[in-house]
Amino acid sequence: MILCDVGNTSVDLYQDGKRAKKPAESFDPASIGENVYFISVNASFNERVKAYSNWIDLRTAVMWDGYYPTMGIDRVMVCEAVEEGVIVDAGSAITVDVMCGGAYQGGFISLGLYAAREAYARLSPALDVSWNFEVDLAKMAKNTPDAVTVGFLAPLVAQIQSLGKPIYLSGGDASILSRFFPDAVVDEELIFKGMKKLIEKGRVC
Amino acid sequence: MILCDVGNTSVDLYQDGKRAKKPAESFDPASIGENVYFISVNASFNERVKAYSNWIDLRTAVMWDGYYPTMGIDRVMVCEAVEEGVIVDAGSAITVDVMCGGAYQGGFISLGLYAAREAYARLSPALDVSWNFEVDLAKMAKNTPDAVTVGFLAPLVAQIQSLGKPIYLSGGDASILSRFFPDAVVDEELIFKGMKKLIEKGRVC
Repeated sequence: MILCDVGNTSVDLYQDGKRAKKPAESFDPASIGENVYFISVNASFNERVKAYSNWIDLRTAVMWDGYYPTMGIDRVMVCEAVEEGVIVDAGSAITVDVMCGGAYQGGFISLGLYAAREAYARLSPALDVSWNFEVDLAKMAKNTPDAVTVGFLAPLVAQIQSLGKPIYLSGGDASILSRFFPDAVVDEELIFKGMKKLIEKGRVC
Repeated sequence: MILCDVGNTSVDLYQDGKRAKKPAESFDPASIGENVYFISVNASFNERVKAYSNWIDLRTAVMWDGYYPTMGIDRVMVCEAVEEGVIVDAGSAITVDVMCGGAYQGGFISLGLYAAREAYARLSPALDVSWNFEVDLAKMAKNTPDAVTVGFLAPLVAQIQSLGKPIYLSGGDASILSRFFPDAVVDEELIFKGMKKLIEKGRVC
């Protein structure tokens, strides 16, 4: 079974535990003859893929009642992977979602680490500093790199921990965030696990 | 006594409880003959003002031991105004600082509301939404405007409240934030109160 997560810049293929990333712009759906189960947030790819019946869009298999219509399909998939817990998907944005007994409880969206750093830098050259990921988030800061790192991370980490559920970290910045969540499960393949679970539910046609 | 807070875009004058704002670029220090006690983060103004002995820079009157050298002088001044509490100065950045028995304990820097909204918008057109300041921060969100508003504000508000001290709100977005801090003191003149207190300490020469 081939799974595929199509973003705006890259196409992430997954088969038998192996991943391959390709640039979205030049990727040709015709290059794969087998069935591919995919999700996509890429409008241009969605147009191109329509011609290929072996590409099966998992969006239609989602029970959308529990989620909300404008929720990103990638976010829905990481939620599908988890029965009970807080799912933190740390990419260009950091999405935080709560699942309880397999039902979606809601969530929130923070800026991703890169976007936040960039936004501070844009505010003032004085705030264009390297973040200190070794910082103690429990302490008030007394220098600029700590003040900015604590300012962004301490509230976010505390808020996630206050939800009182097992924490699952996914996305490109999962390993950076994991040092602040010693008990969290880091799972880079959460999105594909969610896709697989959805397929196994048998609602895919 | 005339007090003046010089920012990068505007000059904020304060005399006998009245404020007047002027564009920083075109402001001429020679237009005031009386003594003016000022703070400034504006490098170009700092050059121009050197020629005028009636303009007295309060930076030199600060006991810097308690603060840190790269801390914004405007941030130091709002701290000087408060003996005991958390000072939240919500401008282009939101600075959060803790004072205890008149001594600086440290703080952190969050993005300002405008900067944060802009950073979300830059991430994706889907996140370029009006924020919902009526939202219940205690609830997980189930639509995009709430998810973004809760994502930015809920962690920040909880973190500030967790500091367990009286809260003072200042800066241009103080009134927006005040709805999330029902017991906070909103004081737009905190910076001038800090300046006055410093002058009264008698270390100004």
